[in-house]
Amino acid sequence: MFKIVIIGSGNVATHLIQAFSENETVDLIQVFARKKENLLSFIAPAKIVDNLSDLKEADLYIIAVSDDAIEQVANQISFENKLVVHTSGSYDFNGISTKNRKGVFYPLQTFSKNKAIDFNTIPLCLEAENEADYAVLEKIAKSVSEKVYQINYQQRQSLHVAAVFVNNFVNHLYQLGSEICDNNQVDFEILKPLIEETANKINKLSPKEAQTGPAKREDFNTIERHLQFISDENQKNIYQMLTQSILSNGKKL
Amino acid sequence: MFKIVIIGSGNVATHLIQAFSENETVDLIQVFARKKENLLSFIAPAKIVDNLSDLKEADLYIIAVSDDAIEQVANQISFENKLVVHTSGSYDFNGISTKNRKGVFYPLQTFSKNKAIDFNTIPLCLEAENEADYAVLEKIAKSVSEKVYQINYQQRQSLHVAAVFVNNFVNHLYQLGSEICDNNQVDFEILKPLIEETANKINKLSPKEAQTGPAKREDFNTIERHLQFISDENQKNIYQMLTQSILSNGKKL
Repeated sequence: MFKIVIIGSGNVATHLIQAFSENETVDLIQVFARKKENLLSFIAPAKIVDNLSDLKEADLYIIAVSDDAIEQVANQISFENKLVVHTSGSYDFNGISTKNRKGVFYPLQTFSKNKAIDFNTIPLCLEAENEADYAVLEKIAKSVSEKVYQINYQQRQSLHVAAVFVNNFVNHLYQLGSEICDNNQVDFEILKPLIEETANKINKLSPKEAQTGPAKREDFNTIERHLQFISDENQKNIYQMLTQSILSNGKKL
Repeated sequence: MFKIVIIGSGNVATHLIQAFSENETVDLIQVFARKKENLLSFIAPAKIVDNLSDLKEADLYIIAVSDDAIEQVANQISFENKLVVHTSGSYDFNGISTKNRKGVFYPLQTFSKNKAIDFNTIPLCLEAENEADYAVLEKIAKSVSEKVYQINYQQRQSLHVAAVFVNNFVNHLYQLGSEICDNNQVDFEILKPLIEETANKINKLSPKEAQTGPAKREDFNTIERHLQFISDENQKNIYQMLTQSILSNGKKL
């Protein structure tokens, strides 16, 4: 069994802790959290430390903290020549101290505290400095997920940017849609089947093939009616910019 | 049984024809299409007419054509005092000739030719001039869908605008995400679980609660790295505008 230590107590860390808790490939021997109480519902108290100098020796250290804190945390791991990975989509692994071997263990998913998720379906994007370390990461990753990918830094950056478009921005459009409903005494529930089908459709058609709506069919009368209907300036600007982008089919303007 | 006639041969019309084809409440007696051959795989040839003057007498005429053609088609129905509805999300029913009774039968879903869909889950937004006609529309709607709503013109307009945000614009963001992947030799498949979870999440949390990402946590370093990574001007403008909208939480700037 691989001995692993997880450093962090945020959304990614807690989902990793749960995924590795009952696992035949991996022994989660320790977790570091600045505030132990954040993790008490996820792991036995005896396994939690709040001082990095108390870390035990392990085969793999997973640093699941905010990007800004990765380097500082990595420098405080007192062991040498251990495999140390972070979980960030946009951070290079060069921030990890050279005294240890570096890698990346990036789960590409949106994690929220109050939403359970089946870890087995989460794509894990791995990177390591050498093949032996990659093989270890891959075994550990495959013990918790069916979807394991070897992804280099540039690919990972592009995935992180693309994820902002298809997750953060998409969710924000859901919010704008729900505000438009609220302002007109319409139950946002009515839009849920459409939202679900929009996401399902791209399993069968490419997004380009799946595109419908007034901008796609160049229906300028409807676009004009919509712009007259929208009173909020921010919503109007977003409507115009995305309509223009569809009209020009996402090409450079 | 209610005798109904469907006018049109586009995506909405063909999905309606399929939904009403085997139905104990409704007898689909006739369909009008300019080009009969478009409908041959959906309904018996004897039921298709290509001249509006050949329409039979029925309890309900459903005009499922583009907004621009609704008025012209409605004027060519030779009967009087019949219930005539259109299927548009953004068109008032006053365009329908006053010699007949007016209404709306708006299925709020995205229809594509090559994507089957379970009609039973599609929200049907109904409007009629009087209660008796509404009752008829409601019975007919409930024979094909579990989700039937009484929606007035302003509510319907707001739903249509909100649908553009949560469907057309969301799908376009999927396309931008897939282009970013393509440009960096990454398989867009890796993003599919994230896209699915983003849509699922709002069944459990409100979109506002579900929001994550660099803009939400005001992580300006990551935002800056992303803007440097994106080379396409259109993608960059969209990234900046939606980031700004999340930062200001969708309120007026």
